[in-house]
Formats: sequence, C-alpha cells, structure tokens
Amino acid sequence: MQERLWQIDELNFESNHQHHYETLFSIGNGYLGTRGTFEEGYFLDAPATLIHGIYDHAPGALVPELVNAPNWLDLKITVDSTPLQMIMTVDRSDFMTPPSGVVIGYERSIDMKRGVLRRDVLFRAQSGNIVRITFERFASLHDQHVMAQRIVITAVDGHPAIIVESALQTDVTNNGVRHWLPDPITKTEGGRLSAQVTTQQSGYVVAMASYLNSPHTEIALPHPGRPATHIVFTLKQEESVTIEKLTTIYTSRDTADPLATAETALDAASARGYDTLLSDHIAEWATDWETADIRIDGDEAIQRALRFTTYHVLIASPRTDEHVSVGAKTLSGLGYKGHVFWDTEIFVTPTLMLIQPKMARNLLMYRYHNLHGAREKAKANGYEGAMYPWESTDTGEETTPQWSDVQPDGSRIRIWTGDNEQHISSDIAYTTHKYWRWTGDDDFLIKYGAEMMLDTAVFWGSRVEYNADHDRYELSQQIGPDEYHENIDNSVFVNRMAQAHLKSALDVLAWLKTKDSVAADRLIAALDLNTTRLDKWRDIVAKMFIPFDHEKAIHIQFPGFFDMEYIPVPHYQPRTTSVQAILGHARSIQTQVIKQADVVMMMALLGHELSIPEGFDPLQVMLNNWNTYYPRTDHGSSLSPAMHAWVAARLGLLDEAYDMLDHAVHIDLQDNKGNVRDGMHAAACGGVWQAVIFGLCGLRISRDGALITDPRLPAHWRRVSFNVYYRGEKRAFTVENPVYSDQS
Amino acid sequence: MQERLWQIDELNFESNHQHHYETLFSIGNGYLGTRGTFEEGYFLDAPATLIHGIYDHAPGALVPELVNAPNWLDLKITVDSTPLQMIMTVDRSDFMTPPSGVVIGYERSIDMKRGVLRRDVLFRAQSGNIVRITFERFASLHDQHVMAQRIVITAVDGHPAIIVESALQTDVTNNGVRHWLPDPITKTEGGRLSAQVTTQQSGYVVAMASYLNSPHTEIALPHPGRPATHIVFTLKQEESVTIEKLTTIYTSRDTADPLATAETALDAASARGYDTLLSDHIAEWATDWETADIRIDGDEAIQRALRFTTYHVLIASPRTDEHVSVGAKTLSGLGYKGHVFWDTEIFVTPTLMLIQPKMARNLLMYRYHNLHGAREKAKANGYEGAMYPWESTDTGEETTPQWSDVQPDGSRIRIWTGDNEQHISSDIAYTTHKYWRWTGDDDFLIKYGAEMMLDTAVFWGSRVEYNADHDRYELSQQIGPDEYHENIDNSVFVNRMAQAHLKSALDVLAWLKTKDSVAADRLIAALDLNTTRLDKWRDIVAKMFIPFDHEKAIHIQFPGFFDMEYIPVPHYQPRTTSVQAILGHARSIQTQVIKQADVVMMMALLGHELSIPEGFDPLQVMLNNWNTYYPRTDHGSSLSPAMHAWVAARLGLLDEAYDMLDHAVHIDLQDNKGNVRDGMHAAACGGVWQAVIFGLCGLRISRDGALITDPRLPAHWRRVSFNVYYRGEKRAFTVENPVYSDQS
Repeated sequence: MQERLWQIDELNFESNHQHHYETLFSIGNGYLGTRGTFEEGYFLDAPATLIHGIYDHAPGALVPELVNAPNWLDLKITVDSTPLQMIMTVDRSDFMTPPSGVVIGYERSIDMKRGVLRRDVLFRAQSGNIVRITFERFASLHDQHVMAQRIVITAVDGHPAIIVESALQTDVTNNGVRHWLPDPITKTEGGRLSAQVTTQQSGYVVAMASYLNSPHTEIALPHPGRPATHIVFTLKQEESVTIEKLTTIYTSRDTADPLATAETALDAASARGYDTLLSDHIAEWATDWETADIRIDGDEAIQRALRFTTYHVLIASPRTDEHVSVGAKTLSGLGYKGHVFWDTEIFVTPTLMLIQPKMARNLLMYRYHNLHGAREKAKANGYEGAMYPWESTDTGEETTPQWSDVQPDGSRIRIWTGDNEQHISSDIAYTTHKYWRWTGDDDFLIKYGAEMMLDTAVFWGSRVEYNADHDRYELSQQIGPDEYHENIDNSVFVNRMAQAHLKSALDVLAWLKTKDSVAADRLIAALDLNTTRLDKWRDIVAKMFIPFDHEKAIHIQFPGFFDMEYIPVPHYQPRTTSVQAILGHARSIQTQVIKQADVVMMMALLGHELSIPEGFDPLQVMLNNWNTYYPRTDHGSSLSPAMHAWVAARLGLLDEAYDMLDHAVHIDLQDNKGNVRDGMHAAACGGVWQAVIFGLCGLRISRDGALITDPRLPAHWRRVSFNVYYRGEKRAFTVENPVYSDQS
Repeated sequence: MQERLWQIDELNFESNHQHHYETLFSIGNGYLGTRGTFEEGYFLDAPATLIHGIYDHAPGALVPELVNAPNWLDLKITVDSTPLQMIMTVDRSDFMTPPSGVVIGYERSIDMKRGVLRRDVLFRAQSGNIVRITFERFASLHDQHVMAQRIVITAVDGHPAIIVESALQTDVTNNGVRHWLPDPITKTEGGRLSAQVTTQQSGYVVAMASYLNSPHTEIALPHPGRPATHIVFTLKQEESVTIEKLTTIYTSRDTADPLATAETALDAASARGYDTLLSDHIAEWATDWETADIRIDGDEAIQRALRFTTYHVLIASPRTDEHVSVGAKTLSGLGYKGHVFWDTEIFVTPTLMLIQPKMARNLLMYRYHNLHGAREKAKANGYEGAMYPWESTDTGEETTPQWSDVQPDGSRIRIWTGDNEQHISSDIAYTTHKYWRWTGDDDFLIKYGAEMMLDTAVFWGSRVEYNADHDRYELSQQIGPDEYHENIDNSVFVNRMAQAHLKSALDVLAWLKTKDSVAADRLIAALDLNTTRLDKWRDIVAKMFIPFDHEKAIHIQFPGFFDMEYIPVPHYQPRTTSVQAILGHARSIQTQVIKQADVVMMMALLGHELSIPEGFDPLQVMLNNWNTYYPRTDHGSSLSPAMHAWVAARLGLLDEAYDMLDHAVHIDLQDNKGNVRDGMHAAACGGVWQAVIFGLCGLRISRDGALITDPRLPAHWRRVSFNVYYRGEKRAFTVENPVYSDQS
C-alpha cells in the first residue's frame, strides 16, 4: 500500500482509450522508448519503438522523422487453439458461451518507481479452460541495449494446451510511411531470433537479437520479415510456467556491426538472466529517484501525477549520448515526428540540470554539435553567426515543414515558425547560461557553451533593426511563444530575450577573458568578436525596444496587440478544445486570444530581471501583466499552464498557482487535449517539475551565490522535500508551508 | 482547492458510462432520490425519482416495486433553434461544421459537502453562436419537499435567441412497466405547473408543483401528460440570464391532498427564493457532516471515496419517516426494486446509530411497524412469533420473488432466499440490541425494541430442531450470507446468530422486568413468554450446534462444506465478474467458493463473543478462520469486502485490511461489478463506514461501559478523526497511528 502513489493503474480495458494508454504506459531508458501496446497486438493499435537519433526522410515526405523500429514486444499466446486477444466480456449474460476467447479479468499498471509495466489477464479460451497470464516488461536502465519481458501463465481451470510464439516484427511503418528498406536480414538460429533493418534515405542500421527462455523446446517459424519461434506445452491445473524474452538492440550509431553486437550482447544478457537484469534495472531507478523525486506532503493526486511526469522526463532523456536530444513528444509517440524544439531547453533541460546535470549537459552538447546547422541557417537567411533551427533532428538543419498537412477543406496552411520563431537561439543561450550558473561547469562553458552563446549573439547583432526615429533597436517579423500571432513586430518576449541574451554573452566573454584567455582569444578570432561588434551589442542591450504601456504599467505583448478584438477567454470554460479551434484560425488571429504564456513566460524566465522603466514597482508591473494576460490566455499549448503556475506562485496567487499546476500535471494523464495518442507532452512534464521547484518552492540562487527557497505553497500542502544538485553537490531541501495548519 | 476531497468530477461525457454516472450523481434528502440524468435528457438515459414508501405491484409482475415518479428535472434549452443535447465533439477536424449543435466543453461534479450537483456546458449552436450553461440542482435537506434547479446561460459568442422549456414529465415507467394510472391531473396556471399521478394497484398519489423563475414572460405549453411552460429571449454578447426552477413534491403518505399541499408549499418556497433555500440546505448538510465525516489524514483517495459512500448513506436514509427504510440500492436506481434487505440493519443502521441516532431509530421503527407482516409470515410457514421477510416493502409482507427473471437459456431459477434466508430475524434483533447498547435509548427498547427481539426469539424457539442423538439444537434448510450454498443444514453463521439472539432476548427480558415491570408483563402476556418457552430458549442457548473442527481449530461454515471441490479463488485475479459467473451456477454451488463474508461476517458481528470450545485460543481460531475462508471467498456480493476489512484490521492483518477497504470503498465509483447503473450498493456504503470505525479504529464499548478505540491503521495513515454519538452525547475521537513515521 506504500506503493500506491508510485503507480498508475488501468482497471478496465476500453478500446476507445487504447492509444491514450499506449502513450502513458510507454517504457524507456533514454536510448529508446516503446509504447505500451499489447504483446499480442490489438485491432488498430499503434505500436512504436523509437530510438534516439534514428531519423529518416522518406521519399515525398516534407521533413525527416524519427523512425518506428521493429516491434520487439511481439509475443502471441494461444490457449487450446484460441489466440489471446483483449476482447473483454461486455455483457455478463452472454459470456458463458463466448464466440471465441474472452478476457474476464484485466489490470495494467506502470510501476514508476521501478520502471516496470505489468499486465494481468484472466483469459477463458473457447474450450472453457481458464488461464491467468501476467506480463512484465522493462527497458533496462542499467544496460540501455537490453529489453526484457516475462510472462507467467497459470492454468486456473482445466488442462490447457498452450502455444507461445515470440517474434521480431520488422514490417513496421510510421503511420503507413515506410522507412525501412525491403528485405531485412532475419535469422532464426536455435532459440535465437535476429533482425537487421536499414533506413531508406539516411542509411541507419538497427539490429535486434532476441531469445526466448522457457522450460520447453523452441521450434523456429521462418516467417519472412518476422523471425519467430514458438513453444508448445500443456499445463496441469494450477501449474504455472514462466517464459522470459530478452531482446538486445544496437544501431549503426552505436557500433560498426549492429547485428553482431546485438547477438553478442544477447548472449551476455541471457547469461545474467532476467532476475539479475531486473534487479540492476531497479537499482538504477532507485538512484535516479533519489534526486528526481519531489515529495509533496498533503497532496496525493499531485504527488502521483508529478511522479508520472517526472518518470517520462527520465525515460525520454538521453543518458550517454550527446548527439541526440528530447523531442517534443518524447519517444512515446509519432507526434511532431521526433523533432526537437525549444521545449527541450526551456522545459526539460533545467529540470535535468538539477537532478542529473550530466544529462542536461548532454542535451546542451546536442546543440553544440549542431552549431554547423545553425550557422548554415543564419547564412542562408542572410545573417551572421548561428541561428538555431526551430525544429531540429540529427543533422542540425532546419526541419520545420513549410506547409501543414492537408486540412479538412483540402488546403494547406503555411507554417512560419521555421522562418520566424527565432527566439529559440536565445532560449538555448538562456539555458546554457543557466546550466553554467547552477552547475558551475566551467569546463563546459569554456569549451562549448560560450561558443553557442556568443555565436547566437552574433546572429542577433546582425538580425536587429535600428530605428533611427526612436533611436532604438527592433525585431520585425517574429513569432513569440504566442504562436496565434505570427510574424509580428517587436514581440516583447523576443526582444527582451534577445537583449538578455546579448547581455549574458558579453558577461560570459568578459568572464572567459579572465578565466581562460587562450580560449577567449580563440573564440574572439573564430567568431570575429571585434570591438565594433561588441560595442553594437552593448548599444543593443541599452536601446532594445521593450514595448511598455506607461499608463497601465504593463508590458505590451507587441505593439498593436490591444487594438484587436477582445475575447473573454474565461467564458469559454469548460472546453475540451482550444478557443482558437472554436473561433477558427482566421478569426482568432485577429483577436487578443493568446495561445500560451508569452509575457507570463518572460516573467517566469527572467523573474525580477525584467526590463521595467524606472519609477515603476517591478512586483506591481508583474501583477498587472498577470491580470492583463492571464484572462486572455487560451492554454492552447501544453507549455502554458506550468509556466503560469510558476509565475502565479511567485506572485503569491496561490489559487491560480494550484489550478494551473493541477492542469499542467494532468495534461497527459487526463488527456484533456485529446492528443496524447501522439505522445507525451515533454514540455509539460519538464515544466511542472520547474513550476514546483522554482515557482512554488521558490528555489533560487541568492546574490551571494547561496541556494535558497522562498515557498508559496497551496494551503493544504504541508511541506515539499527534494534533492537537487548545485555546483556539483547534492543538496537536500525540505520546504515547510509557513501557513500550514491542520485542515481537512 | 480545499474542496477537492469533497468532490467527484466527471471531466468528459462518455455515453457508454452515462448510466454509471447517473447513479453516482444522484441527489436526495431521505425523502426521495433523483438520478443524475441530464435536464434535457439523452439517448437511452435512465431518469428516475424514487420516493420512499411509494410502492406498487403492477399487473403481471412477480412483486411490488418502488415506483419511478414523474421527472421534475425536465428542462429543455434551445439556442437559435438548436436543442441542447450532450453531443460532444469527438473529432476536432470536423466540429467547425457541426451537423447540428455540439458540446465543446463539459464538466460535472457532485459537491458532497453541500449536496449539490453542478454541470457546466459550453455549447455551440448550428448558427455558430456559443453559450455557456451552468446547471445546479439540489434536493433540499432543510425542507424535504422542495427540489431546486438553477441554470445560468451566458452568451459567450454572438447574440443567441434562447428558448427554455420547463416541464413535469408524468409519462414515466420502471423500465417499461407502467405504474401510474392513465390521465394524470396536470395544470399550467400562470407560471406554475402542476401534476398529480396515482399508482394503479397501491393507490398512492404523488403530486408535484413547479415554478420557473426568470426575468422573462412565461408561455404555457399544454402538452398532455407533460405540463410545460417556456420562455423566449435573446442575449447580447457576454450577457447572462439566471433561471430557477423550484418544484415541490407531496404524496398521499404525507397529506390528504398532495396537489393542494404541493401548490401551497411551492408558493412558500418561491417566496423564500433559491438563494435562501440553498443556504438553508447547505447549513443542514454542514450539520450532517459534523458527525458523518471521518477525516483520514494520510490517504486522500480513501478520504474522498469514503465521503462519497457516506454521502449516499445520508441521502438515502429517511430522516423523519419511521414507516420506510433503505433499499439495497438506495433511491438511486431500480435494482432490487427498492426492496429492503438485511443490508439495512447490518450495514446501514449501525452507521446511522453513531452519526444520527434518530435516523437509526426510524429504520428500526420501520421493522417494528411491520411486525404484523413478520407474524403473518411465521404463521404461514407454521411457526410461532415473528419471522421477518427477506425482502420487505411498504406492507411488511415477504416480497422476495420465487423465481428469477428469464435467463439466457429461457429458464427461470428458483429463488430460495425468501423461504430460507431466515437469519434476517436475528440480524434485526442484533441491531436492535446494538442500537440500545450504543444509544442508551431505553424508551425505544421498552416500547418497541424488546417486542421485536422477543417475538423473533419466539420464532426461533419454534423453528429449531432438536437432535436427540447429539442432544443439540439444529437448523436445517438455511441460507447463510454465502448464498452460493442454499438450503444447507447448520450454517454456523445462522446457528450462532440465532443462539446470540435468544441469549440477548433473555437478557433484555430480564432487564425489562427490573426496569419496567408493567411493560414486561404486558409483553409476557402478549407474546406468551411462559416459563416453558423461556426454559427452552435457555436450553437452545446452551445446546445450539456450532459446527467446529477441533483438529483445525476453525469454525465450519456448515457440515459438508469441505467435502466439496476446492477452487483456488486467488488465481481468478484480476476478474471483472464473480467466480460463480465464470464457473457457472451449476458447478459453483458444488465447490467451496464462498459468495461473501460468512464465517468472517460472524467474526465481524460477534467479535470475541464467538462460541469457541474451551481450550482454544479465540484469537488463534479467528486467524485460522480467516486463513481458511478468505482465500475461498469470491466477493461476489458488495457486502463482502467491507466486512473483511473490518475483521482483517481486528486481526492485525493491515495489508489485507487496506486491500479490502480500498475494494469496498470504490465498489460504486469504479463500478467494478458493472451493475452500478441499477443503483448504489447501500450495504457497501454503510459497511465501509463501520469497517473504518469498528475495524480500523477499533471503536467499542469496554466492559465498564466506556467508549474506547484500539487502532489498527495502515502504515501510511497518520490519524483518523471522527465524532460519534454515544448514549446521547457527541464524542470526538482522534486516533493516532501508533506505528506512524513519516513515509512517502
């Protein structure tokens, strides 16, 4: 019963929710993610195994995508000639004479503490015999190339004849799009299955080797494209059999000969055995949770949901590979094609920075290794320096599609984010700087981080427009976080982030000169950081246009924003879709409806370091901003609520903070956007962790470099405990709620 | 956010779950219950308003049933000619051009603290205009004859033309069975609607009067059988209108002229107004919860669910009427036809005894008033005294059907419970005695309770069979709680309960002689409690056969039980149905599968007062009993898990206690038996309250009459606080978990 807040249970299988649960019940280990489909399959299921870095650009497709790997889960069970299928008894009056087999009991749960997915099924075959089947699976966190499954079949009633067939299914697609070349290499040797496939365009090779361990003799089944083996046996009443399937996976990104490596690794894994693999895996999870777990005393619903979102951050983030990053939908679905957005730097990386700094570093290194793509993009657009792509894959190129999929009316919509959502360069610089401040990882900053911050600063230096009439710098044709308003001039978020970016670039360069003058000189030379350029940066920092309404004492999201139609967003409540979808695209872009935290996002990221004209009280301006923008915000993006929770907490708006946190932490569990089938929302998952730590607990670095908290907890939260890494040391915090008194 | 543990929310309407939620979201006030159907109706919905005591025996029906009263919820809203219907947007790609209206936002929640059901709907008419509609309803706890609804309609987008139609729908049936005579009286006078209907067989009259309060002029709609009125208006953008519907309900059980009374009461209610009615209602609920609420510190899921089950006990139990009682499915569904079983005395009454002793007294008085029926049943069966019916309605007659509904194979099954589940007479005597011990209500015992206990004792005195071979008394052809095994001889539960019953009857008579000799003499004369009879009772108490296995040191459920096939019930896990249904009736009755707590039930009710042979350790016998019967129990009845939780806690089996409590408290919320559509499980609702208080908290009366606790709490529960009435005084308890240490 101590485990109940570490589990998400599914007590009844409903086929209309299958894709939702497939996403929720994904397992993974930072190397790959596998959706929670059933071993035996199900009508219209959407199995997927996504391996970091394995992208392919199919012929005719607009952009490359993460490729669905062969299905290693494949296990089919037959009881007295009746195949196990998740057909539940729906009407108790007729299931005594089922047309074929029927599932008379079902329970599935993800054990977040141990990273194990379990399913229990009570199955009645057409013969009348009843078996109980317990499934267990995990993707080893200890050895990222090892996947393990265990099934236990018990004869509950009768003496059933059982067939268990294990396979590696290579005939897989991305929603019908084929990425694998025809004629995979497949082998069935003894009890071992092997498969190797190669992507069509990118030429990546993925190999799997699998072994079925049971007390019974295996018989190979030479299916083309689906190497398989099966065992046949009977069970006496109350007899159980345990069958284990181990699968190893390697790619050409890991090794020169993935198949041979997988086969060798399989032998090693088999020698160690399921139980050892499982206990190593669990031990690794225990280590992970030591820092990742936030313990909330007084709110079980949030506690469980927060563990769930954190679990997904942990399984999605690469652990050892600095050439890949976390896609917007993690590795749990095909949404956004596995592309990497600002979601990673702003939502995921800061979380990892505190719980596993090495993993945060990997994510930043991914951007470093892709600087060449950012430089190419800047050049292609007529700018200097490095301009990061809005959507990024393995090549570092801009991979944002220019056009949407076909809409119901047959048209396609022009997508401008790849052209104009340029703040991503500042976002990366922001998190690079933040990472350094929190980890004290000078080595990283000197060797890699400074170059990213400076060369993206070079980009902004060439990108800004000087407005002589006002003696100020401006940025036209931008898209801020509020993507409902595209190609606007002087987004306060974009301008302010670019300004802060240039300021921090100058600071870092100054620091570098004193810390490592050789490195500084090398960068100055390589990036041509001459005096003219640096003076211009200083001038931009001094004169960047930050739209501000002096009368209302608020930041203006962008000039002209308040001239548009006002829509009372709070009236559109409750709603199962966005206000944008309700109003329609054409109309909503002409209204003040904001997609997501924009000015509010700026307040989250920059806190009191907002650019506020003299004579104004910063806290009052922040409150005014909140009161202005919160009721105009649609939360049409999953990125929005967590940032609102963070800012509301800082402003002492505890009810709003709680509402937004509750919203954010349940985005995937409750599927209140209806799109979880396409994958988890990585940003929401990372965002709620930050909302709790930076927002509600108020963790920050004080002026003298000490780590301090400043809690603003909901009245019913007693305390929050957590561990974070700060400058190489693990630090434990317990934040008590100052207003706590026993309430119920 | 402090309210979150007082609410059950439905965040998305799924039509396949509509009947489940209709039951969960019932409102009521001890006078009537109304299922949570939508005001405007929905395809295949199952609206019902059930009023205590209004039974009718339809021509051709096997038994009488509680009659579905006219639907007072009836409110239809039309927006720009589009009727509001709960058609949700399912595919976001096509809802911009809905075929007709579409619901784009939905949320519903029951506020258990205040007894109010709320629904928020965002609705887009075919015209494109959008309205938000907030529905609120309650059945006044302050004036049980007043029902109130409020809707607020806001024009969110556009200038919609609105029609609101209010009606009283008299054309209602019980699943197609008509109970109301044709041609009801209906009137529409000014803004007032009236309707009066009369049952066909029993002649009960139900009258309703209703008034629609709005700023707009009403126009009557003379529908036959459905008196209605409507208002027509337009809204400007962002304009809101509030409309209130008040309905009063009286029956011929309340007054000679129900219609006139309802109309007069409606005027009074209208004069007081919705807001006053609501605040009075909320105040009454606040008083109720002062004793009813158990506050669990450390388990939010159980906390919320326990409030939910307690809410249903409170809305179902009659408050002022001692001629009616709580049916097995409360007033929330048509299941078991509103019949009253032992569920009431064993599961519901002891809960009320502690939180609202007056209500417990009402329930016992229902049995007192129906003594005549029990005497007739005894006589008809050739026995003396009073033999309570297994199923009871308004007449006190046995109303158990003798045959089941038609089974899938066309057959009907003989139902033996009305003949042979005779322990109900002991159950009533048990709770009568318990009520007296806990409340100190001597007046009740003297005037009513003693007569019930003694005349049912007379029945047992005439019912037992003397076995001369063994010099013992026996009971053949009985059905114990385990109804899978019918018509068995010497059920240990039945024998022991009858023995305890006779013992308590003798004790009460002795007490009565000293307390009120006139009353005692009157009863002795009336019931012919002569010396021979009382001597026989003493002999039965001394020589009742209590089946016991001396070798295994366990009670035997009934002789022969262990000769039947053993089925490993724990292997049938998880399951969505009973093992009985899985094995089939014919086979399961020949196995050791037990429907529900039977020996375990005996341990719950009698605790250490079990009849255990000398030389045996009572606690060890209880543990042996548990270890024997728990793994054989199917929990095929909702009555089972709570009793198991209670006993497991007393035995210190904390994991089992928690598992069973968790199971019991979620029976209705999770609908894990699939039959909640037919109504709430009254016994489970009352049972969990007792399991927590008597089982986990160990509340009991010590030998010296003091009220003490002896907690056995799950490790993660910090403490439990509750208030109970004991002998007229309200007593507050806070039970700390002795093993508590901060865990997470």
